[in-house]
Amino acid sequence: MADELKVFRTWSSPFGLRIIWALQLKGLDYETIFEDLSQKSPLLLQYNPTYKKIPVLVHNGKPISESLVILEYIEDTWKQNPLLPEDPYERAMARFWAKFVDDKLLKSVINVLFTKGKEQEEGIPKVMENLKYIEEELKGKKFFGGATIGFTDIALGWTANLLGVIEEVTGIKFIDAQKFPQISEWMHNFCDVPVIKANWPSRDKLVTKYQAHVAPK
Amino acid sequence: MADELKVFRTWSSPFGLRIIWALQLKGLDYETIFEDLSQKSPLLLQYNPTYKKIPVLVHNGKPISESLVILEYIEDTWKQNPLLPEDPYERAMARFWAKFVDDKLLKSVINVLFTKGKEQEEGIPKVMENLKYIEEELKGKKFFGGATIGFTDIALGWTANLLGVIEEVTGIKFIDAQKFPQISEWMHNFCDVPVIKANWPSRDKLVTKYQAHVAPK
Repeated sequence: MADELKVFRTWSSPFGLRIIWALQLKGLDYETIFEDLSQKSPLLLQYNPTYKKIPVLVHNGKPISESLVILEYIEDTWKQNPLLPEDPYERAMARFWAKFVDDKLLKSVINVLFTKGKEQEEGIPKVMENLKYIEEELKGKKFFGGATIGFTDIALGWTANLLGVIEEVTGIKFIDAQKFPQISEWMHNFCDVPVIKANWPSRDKLVTKYQAHVAPK
Repeated sequence: MADELKVFRTWSSPFGLRIIWALQLKGLDYETIFEDLSQKSPLLLQYNPTYKKIPVLVHNGKPISESLVILEYIEDTWKQNPLLPEDPYERAMARFWAKFVDDKLLKSVINVLFTKGKEQEEGIPKVMENLKYIEEELKGKKFFGGATIGFTDIALGWTANLLGVIEEVTGIKFIDAQKFPQISEWMHNFCDVPVIKANWPSRDKLVTKYQAHVAPK
């Protein structure tokens, strides 16, 4: 039986995009179901009753949720074009930094996006501090995964387009090539990978979407 | 060269305990370094500069942080007495529920512990809802891992002693055998495992510690 793969996602979610990138890097065929989160489908609620969130990957009828858990599943199931290194310590580092992206970097950026005034100002150094850790970690590397993109690159991938969008709607500059040369270079390299380039959502649509979310000044 | 394993932890941290349990389940020798978090050692700050937190596992001089990342490292490095199942889907489910324990259940419990009055009252149903998911997931199982404890059991392990401690200091009852028969049974089974039984910190000391943290009424 051929594998049946379905991805529940939205057009804009960076978490959904992680799954698309991974499946395409593995050379797998899949069907995409675009969800409207204001009116979630009965299937999404059935497949992810705990979080009721996208992305969900359904493999031969069996659902998996949480993007980093899904990436591990894809890696465990299809061995071609590995996303994680073989060496246990390097695997641990890849997982550590992917978790850091979600637990620290992403949360600090969301905090700046959804606040204003003094609270927003106080949140900016936290973002910068988190970016500095990433900058340090990328020294001397093309990608976190080495010569090709892997687990941590996919986890960090959203920064390569969304940070720019968030800069535009908030007027706050996070990344410049002088302050963060490694991250700037990584973003350039990352966006140059065909599978990445082919799947970005429209920047204009993203700006409009985030403008509606951002805290009024 | 024999493996040199060092665990940086505190006497009370449930995250540190996860690493001790996993190493002992694997039958590995290690040295414990007990940290005083009010005066962190230079070594801890050197080994975990990003979070400056315990636990840290140092294997032949190389540090790994974040308890679930450390568990994966232990599992990847020492194959005996597996903590994760072989089947990719079952592995994904183990990871999903371990992540749920940290992202949802633990946060909802901490919220109740550190608030009071109306805020605390409103937090209780969230804990109960999260426990219901665990209850449902445990149906028909001795452990999450099947006949022996595994990754998710280790992640959930703190509930088996700390929920009781938190019940005592807050006066809020979370677990009873009628409402949560599966969790009650799981707690009983879990505490009965020799490696678990041998490593619990003193309950009296925990009560004193948590009493100092709890929000005054």
